[in-house]
Amino acid sequence: MPIIESIPNISEGRRPEVVERIVGAVRATPGVRVLDHSSDRSHNRSVITLAGDPTSIKAAILALYEAAVPAIDLRTHSGEHPRVGAVDVVPFVPIEDVTMSDCVTLAREVAAEVAARFDIPVFLYEEASDNPARRNLEDIRRGEFEGLAAKLSSDGWKPDFGPAAPHLSAGASVIGARMPLIAYNINLNTDRLDVAKKIAAAIRHSSGGLRYVKAMGVKLEERNLAQVSINLTNYQKTPVHRVFDMVAREAARYGVGILESEVIGLIPAAALVGAAEHYLQLERFSAAQILENKLREEKERF
Amino acid sequence: MPIIESIPNISEGRRPEVVERIVGAVRATPGVRVLDHSSDRSHNRSVITLAGDPTSIKAAILALYEAAVPAIDLRTHSGEHPRVGAVDVVPFVPIEDVTMSDCVTLAREVAAEVAARFDIPVFLYEEASDNPARRNLEDIRRGEFEGLAAKLSSDGWKPDFGPAAPHLSAGASVIGARMPLIAYNINLNTDRLDVAKKIAAAIRHSSGGLRYVKAMGVKLEERNLAQVSINLTNYQKTPVHRVFDMVAREAARYGVGILESEVIGLIPAAALVGAAEHYLQLERFSAAQILENKLREEKERF
Repeated sequence: MPIIESIPNISEGRRPEVVERIVGAVRATPGVRVLDHSSDRSHNRSVITLAGDPTSIKAAILALYEAAVPAIDLRTHSGEHPRVGAVDVVPFVPIEDVTMSDCVTLAREVAAEVAARFDIPVFLYEEASDNPARRNLEDIRRGEFEGLAAKLSSDGWKPDFGPAAPHLSAGASVIGARMPLIAYNINLNTDRLDVAKKIAAAIRHSSGGLRYVKAMGVKLEERNLAQVSINLTNYQKTPVHRVFDMVAREAARYGVGILESEVIGLIPAAALVGAAEHYLQLERFSAAQILENKLREEKERF
Repeated sequence: MPIIESIPNISEGRRPEVVERIVGAVRATPGVRVLDHSSDRSHNRSVITLAGDPTSIKAAILALYEAAVPAIDLRTHSGEHPRVGAVDVVPFVPIEDVTMSDCVTLAREVAAEVAARFDIPVFLYEEASDNPARRNLEDIRRGEFEGLAAKLSSDGWKPDFGPAAPHLSAGASVIGARMPLIAYNINLNTDRLDVAKKIAAAIRHSSGGLRYVKAMGVKLEERNLAQVSINLTNYQKTPVHRVFDMVAREAARYGVGILESEVIGLIPAAALVGAAEHYLQLERFSAAQILENKLREEKERF
């Protein structure tokens, strides 16, 4: 069965009853499961994780807009996290039996529908965007809600769908498609923050490292350990094991070793299977050889 | 949903119509899927792989006996593979949401029922046996069908269920519970069979190696490579990655490296996840963090 995940970010994290109403609208959509939702007061923002088949996901996201747009007014919104809209960002992520291109198609359909139905300007981002200058969420969000009117009328910032002026209360939305993010931390057997920072700089894309790595060095004060904190934005192209090996190599250069690593939240099975294939030097291996996959395949066939 | 796999071995590999009838009886059992079956003419033996919930698996195995016992006569059976019965061996293997102890319980229930219904002596083996001398299939099968009458009346070989005399045509059965087998080969970057044989001897249990490893050195003539061919009988206690590392270390001692490794047939996801955890030094990781598991869990809950 095709499964797409979506992780809409809404600009409301302080009124639980409003968040609950919006999450409820998603949950009430047949064929969709809400896997998680969490609110952050200081960011004044909530993140909802849902999954389902493409048609159900589309219906659920439209139900979310229906509930969120009248309830959230950006003109009176404040919080630490940058945002351009009431429904700020909506990524679609391929999980099972769907391609990235299916997610791009869904992103464009939802974007067109949101623009038409709510009169909200929509930017496409990441894989859904054809425009290299507008693939990056940070670039689109720069200037935030307050700078949106100026941005929308400036050169190169005509939205992909909808009017070239912000929705009065709901601002704009950023809708797109991306790979599942993996939050992955590597703890070093040292308390030297400078080493963690140097390693982070070596491996991250922005300073010359691996294409799909974001990283920073941090200090875990309670354990007196230095940590390389990593976001992997495309584990198929920059696999976890390559990042691990690179960190180990860079750490060795300072006489430091890896104490342990940790996955924060969820990780696709394929990322772990890929690491096993790599270190075990497995050849001619296919996911159909995984016992559980074989069983599920049989279940669905009969 | 609890899933148990069973891999009955029957002493018929030359009459396809008989095998098809027996497989058909299994397939007709509701709640059971036949994942695979294959016959070997020279062994005169067929192996059927089925999976389902415990109750359905029990019904399917009894249906298999119902079809196989009248159709297979060991008095006129010959083949290269050792055997004691028409339905020779029936292992139950825990796959999902079941414990080894559930499989042991099922093995005992099926053994009692087979003995009562068909008047066949049944030996329990592997995890289902309390008797260390009778855990090993090879020990139980020694003497084969032809030596069965003498064996059953000898000291220490009273069957666990049923009469202390062979069934005239169907002999005896060996029923038990075990972990999934992993067939795993490691190809060396050399054609030296002697090196593969020395490594196999170093890693296998029978000659002082790892507890759940069977191994031999073989030559892949068509590729001019030496191979360490491995059966892993309990990947939870002797994990794939430990075997791989040990082979690499032993090979290095002869100036040889690992070219590649290969899984033959199926492997449980947990064996690969375990390898990833090991090499990535993952701590505080749980299977619930695997995205696909989380999704399935949600599907089943609602």
